[in-house]
Amino acid sequence: VKALCLRDGALAVRDIAVPEPGPDEALIRVSMAGICNTDLEIAKGYMGFSGVLGHELCGVVEACSDRRYVGRRVAGEINLACTHCALCRRGLGRHCATRSVMGIVAKDGCFAEYVTLPVRNLHVLPNSLPDELACFVEPTAAAFEVLDQITPMPRDRALVLGDGKLGMLVAQVLLTTGCQVTLAGKHERKLELARALGLTTATQAELEPKSFDIVVDATGSPTGLQQAIGLTRPRGTLVLKSTYHGRLSLDAAPIVIDEITLIGSRCGPFAIAVAALEAGSIDPRPLIDAVLPLHEGVAGFERSAEPGGLKVLLDMRELAAK
Amino acid sequence: VKALCLRDGALAVRDIAVPEPGPDEALIRVSMAGICNTDLEIAKGYMGFSGVLGHELCGVVEACSDRRYVGRRVAGEINLACTHCALCRRGLGRHCATRSVMGIVAKDGCFAEYVTLPVRNLHVLPNSLPDELACFVEPTAAAFEVLDQITPMPRDRALVLGDGKLGMLVAQVLLTTGCQVTLAGKHERKLELARALGLTTATQAELEPKSFDIVVDATGSPTGLQQAIGLTRPRGTLVLKSTYHGRLSLDAAPIVIDEITLIGSRCGPFAIAVAALEAGSIDPRPLIDAVLPLHEGVAGFERSAEPGGLKVLLDMRELAAK
Repeated sequence: VKALCLRDGALAVRDIAVPEPGPDEALIRVSMAGICNTDLEIAKGYMGFSGVLGHELCGVVEACSDRRYVGRRVAGEINLACTHCALCRRGLGRHCATRSVMGIVAKDGCFAEYVTLPVRNLHVLPNSLPDELACFVEPTAAAFEVLDQITPMPRDRALVLGDGKLGMLVAQVLLTTGCQVTLAGKHERKLELARALGLTTATQAELEPKSFDIVVDATGSPTGLQQAIGLTRPRGTLVLKSTYHGRLSLDAAPIVIDEITLIGSRCGPFAIAVAALEAGSIDPRPLIDAVLPLHEGVAGFERSAEPGGLKVLLDMRELAAK
Repeated sequence: VKALCLRDGALAVRDIAVPEPGPDEALIRVSMAGICNTDLEIAKGYMGFSGVLGHELCGVVEACSDRRYVGRRVAGEINLACTHCALCRRGLGRHCATRSVMGIVAKDGCFAEYVTLPVRNLHVLPNSLPDELACFVEPTAAAFEVLDQITPMPRDRALVLGDGKLGMLVAQVLLTTGCQVTLAGKHERKLELARALGLTTATQAELEPKSFDIVVDATGSPTGLQQAIGLTRPRGTLVLKSTYHGRLSLDAAPIVIDEITLIGSRCGPFAIAVAALEAGSIDPRPLIDAVLPLHEGVAGFERSAEPGGLKVLLDMRELAAK
């Protein structure tokens, strides 16, 4: 079967064997999968990963020890936890020290006809949620993680820095709390899409320094953190959502002087994301730039990496139909 | 009168005029003052300051519009707030955007025979607190700021990284909460002093990665933050206490991946510090390396900057006696 693989730093569609599910795993025929900025960074060397890329998926369970899952459409959590270490027992399986991570750490991903995942990682999808939207369950969950970490108040001024895929989702998530949300970015096309979603937008030049109670760095850029620090008010909160390959140069003094709270934020709650996508309170439709077949995966990465690019989905359904 | 001044990057004891107190200010005859790591950084160019250095003081009010203060021994808060901006009205005067800061930003400091401070910045000292300990009110308040920002639980494992003056104070402050505190540093002499204060100590090599619920970076070094990140458990808390001149190179990915909360921490509550020093729950006595007269201030800075050096106090009392 076909899969989009990173091997020795080179990205290509290759033939691989159908993966063998472990005893507690399901074999999933992938329907669609989304390309994330993290995938672009991994292709540049982030995480030192080698194997099948991809971690945002929607698919159908073909084989599973728990028969109730067979034939069901699912999304899948990406962290494969050991379930018995101290962190797992604390309910922090997403932080299990010996975890593998689908398409990121020591576990083949979902840019493939088939992928395997532990049954406990599966979330059955409602029929009303089409495949295109179901691919956004994982990034929407990551956006909702912010609300697991901070509680915006109605009068809080929140800023999302970065008009990319994740920034647009985080801004929509913050908007559900009733706080005042501004999305700032560099791309007029994306800011226009954001306004159509009901968001207030700004260019970075329009932002007043040290004026936001909450700032989310979703720039995906090593320069984003310093910008975000400069826009956070004293004693304000900065949520760091960007991951990228490489080191950044930072003047950390303003964090101390302004007593900023900086919170790293990664994966989030799937069930809430499924519900919000189903209810339409989060609408990722405008974020879809293109749907490409798997064999055009490399082109999909290039398209996704273009300045101003948004979500590219890879479609494996025609492969299943063959 | 004499003062230790930084001018064009050069540190020297110079003759200055007795400062004129403003309408809401007191004129304080300085008894003793402590040299802080921030002073050493300022002397290297941090904050771009020029003027009389020093912000940890104990002195006697000589003149004041509020007569009740005249003749009283006081410590003084270092931030001079405008009192009417949005931050000041929120009770965040220590973060007032137009503040000056004694010995740090646009306000002469206390390494001098006299200093002026707003009356609202003064804290009258109990007679039982000798001058040597009263000089520690400011840094002890900065250490207590940590408890204003986080609430350690009894089973929490806390680590203070850095066996300098501030690290020793922060470790003692954390110990008052009943959590498990380890102080880690490079200097056997200081670790021995810390053990005499009842602290558990470790060398950095002995620390298990990602194992501490709470980590305080008090290294005062640009490399401290990355070390501290690596020692914080997933979803743990890192308090950043270090300020230094210059930028640092950082791999920020672990903050995101491990969802670490990083909190910048600066000045703190004076009243709590005075009470803790009076009660003896914080004991800075072992931290005093030397007490030197003001005219040996430059030597005091050199002494304070030596590896393994702790607190150097400057004594102005003999000047007053002349």
